[in-house]
Amino acid sequence: MAAIVRDKAAYHAQTNDRMNRHFEAPNWSVKQKLALACRILAMEGHDSGLAGQLTARGPASGTYYMLRFGLGLDEITAGNLLLVDDDLNVLEGNGMPNPSNRFHLWIYRARAAVGSIMHTHPPHVSALSMIGVPLAVSHMDTSLFLEDCAWLREWPGTPIGDEEGRIISEALGDKKAILLAHHGQLTATASVEHALVLAMFIERAAKLQLMAMSAGTIAPVDPALAQEAHDYRHKPKAIAATFAYYARRALRLDAGVLDEQPESLRGKAMQGN
Amino acid sequence: MAAIVRDKAAYHAQTNDRMNRHFEAPNWSVKQKLALACRILAMEGHDSGLAGQLTARGPASGTYYMLRFGLGLDEITAGNLLLVDDDLNVLEGNGMPNPSNRFHLWIYRARAAVGSIMHTHPPHVSALSMIGVPLAVSHMDTSLFLEDCAWLREWPGTPIGDEEGRIISEALGDKKAILLAHHGQLTATASVEHALVLAMFIERAAKLQLMAMSAGTIAPVDPALAQEAHDYRHKPKAIAATFAYYARRALRLDAGVLDEQPESLRGKAMQGN
Amino acid sequence: MAAIVRDKAAYHAQTNDRMNRHFEAPNWSVKQKLALACRILAMEGHDSGLAGQLTARGPASGTYYMLRFGLGLDEITAGNLLLVDDDLNVLEGNGMPNPSNRFHLWIYRARAAVGSIMHTHPPHVSALSMIGVPLAVSHMDTSLFLEDCAWLREWPGTPIGDEEGRIISEALGDKKAILLAHHGQLTATASVEHALVLAMFIERAAKLQLMAMSAGTIAPVDPALAQEAHDYRHKPKAIAATFAYYARRALRLDAGVLDEQPESLRGKAMQGN
Amino acid sequence: MAAIVRDKAAYHAQTNDRMNRHFEAPNWSVKQKLALACRILAMEGHDSGLAGQLTARGPASGTYYMLRFGLGLDEITAGNLLLVDDDLNVLEGNGMPNPSNRFHLWIYRARAAVGSIMHTHPPHVSALSMIGVPLAVSHMDTSLFLEDCAWLREWPGTPIGDEEGRIISEALGDKKAILLAHHGQLTATASVEHALVLAMFIERAAKLQLMAMSAGTIAPVDPALAQEAHDYRHKPKAIAATFAYYARRALRLDAGVLDEQPESLRGKAMQGN
Repeated sequence: MAAIVRDKAAYHAQTNDRMNRHFEAPNWSVKQKLALACRILAMEGHDSGLAGQLTARGPASGTYYMLRFGLGLDEITAGNLLLVDDDLNVLEGNGMPNPSNRFHLWIYRARAAVGSIMHTHPPHVSALSMIGVPLAVSHMDTSLFLEDCAWLREWPGTPIGDEEGRIISEALGDKKAILLAHHGQLTATASVEHALVLAMFIERAAKLQLMAMSAGTIAPVDPALAQEAHDYRHKPKAIAATFAYYARRALRLDAGVLDEQPESLRGKAMQGN
Repeated sequence: MAAIVRDKAAYHAQTNDRMNRHFEAPNWSVKQKLALACRILAMEGHDSGLAGQLTARGPASGTYYMLRFGLGLDEITAGNLLLVDDDLNVLEGNGMPNPSNRFHLWIYRARAAVGSIMHTHPPHVSALSMIGVPLAVSHMDTSLFLEDCAWLREWPGTPIGDEEGRIISEALGDKKAILLAHHGQLTATASVEHALVLAMFIERAAKLQLMAMSAGTIAPVDPALAQEAHDYRHKPKAIAATFAYYARRALRLDAGVLDEQPESLRGKAMQGN
Repeated sequence: MAAIVRDKAAYHAQTNDRMNRHFEAPNWSVKQKLALACRILAMEGHDSGLAGQLTARGPASGTYYMLRFGLGLDEITAGNLLLVDDDLNVLEGNGMPNPSNRFHLWIYRARAAVGSIMHTHPPHVSALSMIGVPLAVSHMDTSLFLEDCAWLREWPGTPIGDEEGRIISEALGDKKAILLAHHGQLTATASVEHALVLAMFIERAAKLQLMAMSAGTIAPVDPALAQEAHDYRHKPKAIAATFAYYARRALRLDAGVLDEQPESLRGKAMQGN
Repeated sequence: MAAIVRDKAAYHAQTNDRMNRHFEAPNWSVKQKLALACRILAMEGHDSGLAGQLTARGPASGTYYMLRFGLGLDEITAGNLLLVDDDLNVLEGNGMPNPSNRFHLWIYRARAAVGSIMHTHPPHVSALSMIGVPLAVSHMDTSLFLEDCAWLREWPGTPIGDEEGRIISEALGDKKAILLAHHGQLTATASVEHALVLAMFIERAAKLQLMAMSAGTIAPVDPALAQEAHDYRHKPKAIAATFAYYARRALRLDAGVLDEQPESLRGKAMQGN
């Protein structure tokens, strides 16, 4: 059978059309998506004690959904998220947010289009952050980060103050992700789904990079091809489909993550009121 | 007690005879075997978001079983596979196939004896694919790939077009596997079982190679001995027994994988109709 | 919205105040906390056969809670702990303590403020202990160990005698942790919670260090910033919150760990009476 | 309180006495212990397809318990083991043994005191076996292998013949373990328990060695101290206690492993009659 041969642009158009027809995302609320993102990053091994802060803009300007400090990523539900104001005062919910979330506020202020920020200290990003090199883009799957991952070369210290917020916000610039030396990673995008997919894949990219650097020398990729792959991977429908897939995995482990009722926490052994 | 000493050829003959008498594979359909293969590679950690495409020839010429794009390897059942034509149009089932499956078509056209193709981006293959070296054969278990793993040194870009199909198909040639630079791995064999075992072991081989290269210098093996081991490992009965073992593992996790009824998907949170 | 900018000292004070108001730890007994610590380190992969000794001071001077030798970290309950005297004679419970616990006694004698000691041979600490380098502090999360992790460069042998106790105790000095060459790690602090968090994070620190050293050269951090992070991480409320989080994880796996009734062991296939 | 200081020999004597009084092993049959060993090595990640052969002497001279070829380590029960003769003919049970078990026969013939052999291709041993170095002893826990781990530097090929049996048997000599280049590991000891503990720890030793070599240069240990640790770790009571601990773990996963009834296999999807 003879193959039909078409220009690649035709396939890109066909793919866009098919994705638009076939992919329809569940109707989750922002709180549900943020809670799902916590569970997904927990499954991906992002926990480092109580470090790790996932946030999203709240319903009113200058309000944000944040995790209650003291809860791990695997304990978050839509119902135990806090709503805080622009000075980290709690508007809804019990407990306190992570004081280090202060630097998120700087990013939200600087970039109106950012709707969600995910900052974690996963192991491979953490190890990579210790050796003074930027994130490498040398694989199709990590082309997500081509020209889209900033690098803060110096650690400004524990980010509970304003100065760290200013430094990180400036280093991030208009990119979607940043590798923070001696610290971890941060993604900042319009949607929770997008920030989650980048947070997952920056840790996977760091793992590939560490393994590759341990065994040999990383070879470069053609920037034009990487740019095409970058754009393909950042398609909103592809991001949404990837988020939905990992969300289903998280839901198989515990469907209670979606519960928006306050205090739906299981095993609330700690954290007073 | 004195040992009987025989020529090794006698033992090879005895082994063939015993395997033929003792090994009888379950009577799974192609769709069931393809779904089992997805679950096995999921257990082996091959997932990389929604990348990863396992396909097999369908009942009519120019038809193929493919995964519905948006489902992960751990969600596939015999019942949610798609049947598509030679231009990726869906003949049976809901949804769309992965647009990147286009390059599979090029391989099926070029090699009539290929009945199944398994392409994934598992982490160790991915890391190895970034450092510009071919797969090494330096262990009895990875002798499977002796002179049977091609290497595409340059990444042709996201494989949703025809040009990538031509390039990958030519690079594969008549081998059973290929390491794709900056991308992943692909196996192409007559049976689903064979493609699965090679896909499993190429990732394991890459893991051994990365660990070995990180710690020292890989030593060569005698090619004649590796060839003997290669042929021993590729025996159809041995391949079938290995597939059946991992299939039993997958079935212990979820026996529903064999269900050929359409839409037997659990947790179909995404994917329209 | 304009940001309020404050001095960092104000944020530290605010954080202290909020933690004091919002964090209240469960009222677990020392035995329960010690059993929880065993389960947490089991979850963290600290097991190395029957090596690994977690102890705490008992109710009377010169008495100590210890594990029954022969039980793994994942089998400990509050009810199967032993109470022993200062010569490892059993005062309460069945069985014998690990003879290697003798060197714990030397540390308890030398440092009256130490209430709990956790000594394990986890894999990354063990590998690091073989290459003649001290623990590196090059990440915010491992700043816990800044000037607080001693290093015993030479292995004094199996620590069942007194000489090893003297050597390890002297090498530890007044620090909270020590890396023991060719052997493992030890933490010694006032509380069970504090010793557990350090034991968890020294293994994580060793993992980061090994990965970083395999891929490149570890870059230094500013000691003043690391000191600030060190002090922040050692806050008693932060330590208690971290312990409580991992304890909840352990309790989800097996709530029976808290049972103080003697012989609440499940599956007591071994260990006589 | 002043410490009593004793000579270390006194502590060794005290330890022996206490172990003899306090440790009593369950009364498992050889078949049950062999099946438990399979499950423990499965939990430890020793599987490599169907490679991996655990055997023990049977009730009559020249008889051996072996695994049915086609079953994985995680599927073995006391009831599905085969009893074979000195030419691998099946005396009891269904199916065929692994043809590669032939080289076990050579070791049993050469060393009357060997009662059990465990040969596997676990990943870290496999990677180490590719780089032309012997197993290093540089940690207290791996002192088990001091002067007790032989090294076969050249791979003799797939061991289904007699020549490989002769070569491996001679290379092993009178040691308890051997690292087999490009192949895997083998332990040969009087008891199943002893062979299991060594098989577990040689893989752990290889993992430590690979990590250490990747990050730096392994430092030597004092041979006299390593010898003392070696002897301490090989005490029969300590070996039995370690085996019993991991056996309890395996039993918690599936108590059916002890079932001596023939065909107690669950999920016997393959293997004829």
